[in-house]
Amino acid sequence: MKELIDRILHEGKHLGNGILKVDGFINHQVDPTLMDACGKEFAYRFKDIGATKVLTAEISGIAPAVTTALHMGLPVVYARKHKPITMPDQVFLTLTPSHTKGRIVELIVSPEYLAGGERVLIIDDFLATGATILGLVRLAQTAGAKIVGIGALIEKTFEGGRDVLTPLGVPIESLARIVAMDGEQIRFNHD
Amino acid sequence: MKELIDRILHEGKHLGNGILKVDGFINHQVDPTLMDACGKEFAYRFKDIGATKVLTAEISGIAPAVTTALHMGLPVVYARKHKPITMPDQVFLTLTPSHTKGRIVELIVSPEYLAGGERVLIIDDFLATGATILGLVRLAQTAGAKIVGIGALIEKTFEGGRDVLTPLGVPIESLARIVAMDGEQIRFNHD
Repeated sequence: MKELIDRILHEGKHLGNGILKVDGFINHQVDPTLMDACGKEFAYRFKDIGATKVLTAEISGIAPAVTTALHMGLPVVYARKHKPITMPDQVFLTLTPSHTKGRIVELIVSPEYLAGGERVLIIDDFLATGATILGLVRLAQTAGAKIVGIGALIEKTFEGGRDVLTPLGVPIESLARIVAMDGEQIRFNHD
Repeated sequence: MKELIDRILHEGKHLGNGILKVDGFINHQVDPTLMDACGKEFAYRFKDIGATKVLTAEISGIAPAVTTALHMGLPVVYARKHKPITMPDQVFLTLTPSHTKGRIVELIVSPEYLAGGERVLIIDDFLATGATILGLVRLAQTAGAKIVGIGALIEKTFEGGRDVLTPLGVPIESLARIVAMDGEQIRFNHD
């Protein structure tokens, strides 16, 4: 998506080790107009998959997941990383390595909001190694729900996440595909 | 706001000790259509304050802050509770007690996205004791920014947060004001 790619080119910063800083419009400060445009684009690309719910992971997935869900008229559930006191004792929980945190984090969803028979569209900010998205897939499958699509704002193709998720046999869409980051240069696949 | 009050009456649950569970439409599962309506209402109520930025705290403030910012055409910054590796070494940081977590949490904002001269509208999910919002106020003031308004989806008037914030002399708006929770009964001030 041209607007997102242009924004990454102008404001994104490669910090080394494959870490892309987009804190000015996605990960700390959020541009809601851009997020709304991204949500609209995801809603268009996934209009035919019959999704009944959008699933994401706190924290940075929330903004794009909410705008996508708004354009699709669906509820969105964000997996928590810490169990709040409002959650029941029995939960769906999985562990996943966090690339940016350098440690294992929990992803927790309450059975109240993810049920068997749901058709789940996963939306997240990044598709890198695919580890977080795969954690969300495990949660949904444990709940008896079916994954019907996966969307990420930014894909780093060189981290191999798409290969990990392809066996699921569902459409995988990313709005900006980065094929390489060399020093300050960020290169995209414009297909 | 009638839609929000009705939703709390139908789906909200008093868990005791003043804890209101609204995980079905705000805090874990999010109803984006309701959040969009709340954002539109905040944008209307704060249309004359000359805000240049919306500030919230992760995690549950993000959805209403993003929809408010979208309707106001402003960027939104969410204070982080853990410093990500993309953030510079020098940050604005304050400590605040978390009612629902039962411990002290950090609120962190990068100086890159909160500058002197900004006119800040704070949006959060709850106004209870006012501690989190007061933490955001301190961060903004440390940055040299000016607070120009405070909005919360749900106010628990019996926890006194409004009294804590009134000395700031800015408009404080909440969309559902709960005056008491007795057992399963939740009572509102419909003014």
